[in-house]
Amino acid sequence: MEIKVLRNVMIKNNSVGKDNRELFINKKVFVANLVSSPGAGKTTLLENSISSLAAKYKVGVIEGDLYTSRDAERLEKFNIPIVQINTEGGCHLDARMVRGAINELNIDNVDVLFIENVGNLVCPSSFDLGEHKRILVYSITEGEDKPKKYSTMFSTADVVIINKVDLSKACKINIDQVENEIRSINKKALILKVSALEPNSLREWLLWLEGEIERVKKS
Amino acid sequence: MEIKVLRNVMIKNNSVGKDNRELFINKKVFVANLVSSPGAGKTTLLENSISSLAAKYKVGVIEGDLYTSRDAERLEKFNIPIVQINTEGGCHLDARMVRGAINELNIDNVDVLFIENVGNLVCPSSFDLGEHKRILVYSITEGEDKPKKYSTMFSTADVVIINKVDLSKACKINIDQVENEIRSINKKALILKVSALEPNSLREWLLWLEGEIERVKKS
Repeated sequence: MEIKVLRNVMIKNNSVGKDNRELFINKKVFVANLVSSPGAGKTTLLENSISSLAAKYKVGVIEGDLYTSRDAERLEKFNIPIVQINTEGGCHLDARMVRGAINELNIDNVDVLFIENVGNLVCPSSFDLGEHKRILVYSITEGEDKPKKYSTMFSTADVVIINKVDLSKACKINIDQVENEIRSINKKALILKVSALEPNSLREWLLWLEGEIERVKKS
Repeated sequence: MEIKVLRNVMIKNNSVGKDNRELFINKKVFVANLVSSPGAGKTTLLENSISSLAAKYKVGVIEGDLYTSRDAERLEKFNIPIVQINTEGGCHLDARMVRGAINELNIDNVDVLFIENVGNLVCPSSFDLGEHKRILVYSITEGEDKPKKYSTMFSTADVVIINKVDLSKACKINIDQVENEIRSINKKALILKVSALEPNSLREWLLWLEGEIERVKKS
C-alpha cells in the first residue's frame, strides 16, 4: 500500500513536471533546479551569480525551505521576482509546489529562473520539477566519499559544482579524488570547481549559464 | 490518502520504537542515534569515540547508509560488532530496520550501541528508533542559519555537537552566533564544540557518554 501510494505520487509529480517543462519551453525561460546538502552554498552561489547576470538577463527565483524565508531575504537586494515555498517540514520541492509558485511569478518577464530546493542530498533527487538542468552544489567539506553514498543525486545532476575549494587544505581533502568519485557515478555531468564567495571563480559557471539561457531563448 | 498512510507509517514506527526502547532498557544498553547532514562528521566522531571507549565498554554499531558500507568499513579496525543497514535510496532509518539489525547483533554483549543514521537533516528527525538520546552533529561549515531552517531536527536533539570548529575562521563563521541560534530552537540540549579529528577536543563528549552508559547500566 505504501509503495502504491508512493508510485501514484511519483506519477502525478512527473506529469506536472512535464507540464512545467512545456510551459518553460514555450515561454523561453531557462530553468535550473539547485540541489545540495544543507549549507553547501546554494544561496551564496545564487547571490554572486545573480549580481553578474542581472545586468543582462531578467532573473526570477523560487526559494524552497522547510520553514523560513531567510534565503529569499538574502536575495531581496536584487529587486527581482522571488517566490518563497515553505514545505512545513517536507523534505523536497515537488512539481505541483513549483507550479503554484510559477502562478505567482510573471514568467513572461523572466529569462532565467533559479529554483533553490530544500537542502537535502536524498529526497529532491527523485522529483522532476520540469527544470532544464539540475545543478548539484557539493561542498568539499563534506568529504570525498559522498558521490557513491548519495549516488541517485550525483547520477541525476547535469552540473556538479564542487564548492568551497579554498578549504580543501584545511579539510585535508584531495579535490582530484572528489572529481574522480563524481566521474565514476556520472560520466556526462559538467564538473566545475569554485569558491562561491569569490566571484572570480565563477567565470566558467556564468559562461555556461549564459550559453544555456541563450540556447533556450533562441529555441 | 497520502496523509493517512503516512500517519499509519508513523504510528507503526513509534510502536516498534517503543518496543526497541524497552528492550534496550531491559538489556541495560545505552543507545545513541547519531544524525546530521551528509559529511558533518558522524563517522569520524564515532572512530575517535570508540577508540577511547572500547578499552572500558563493549561497543556495538548499526550503520545506516543508502547504498554503501563505507562507514562500516572505517570501523572494522575496532573488531566490534557492526551491522550495516542499506536503505536502497531511503532517506532515513526507521524503528523496524533497527529491530532487524538488533536481531543480528548480540546485544547481551553490548554496553553502548551507536546508530549512525542516514546523512539527512530533514527526514530522520521524525522517526523514533527507540534510542535513549539523539545526538545531532552539526558542522560549522554549514553556516549559522541552519538551526532555524531545520528546526525539527534541532529541537528534537538531546545533544548538539558543533563540529569542525577549527574551520570557523576559514569559513568566517561566528561560533557564538551558531550557539545562540541552536539555543533559540532548543533550550535544553547539551551543546558541545569539538573538532572530531582532534581526540583532545572530545573529552567533554566522552565524559558525558560514560555518564550515560553508567546510568543505564545501573538502572
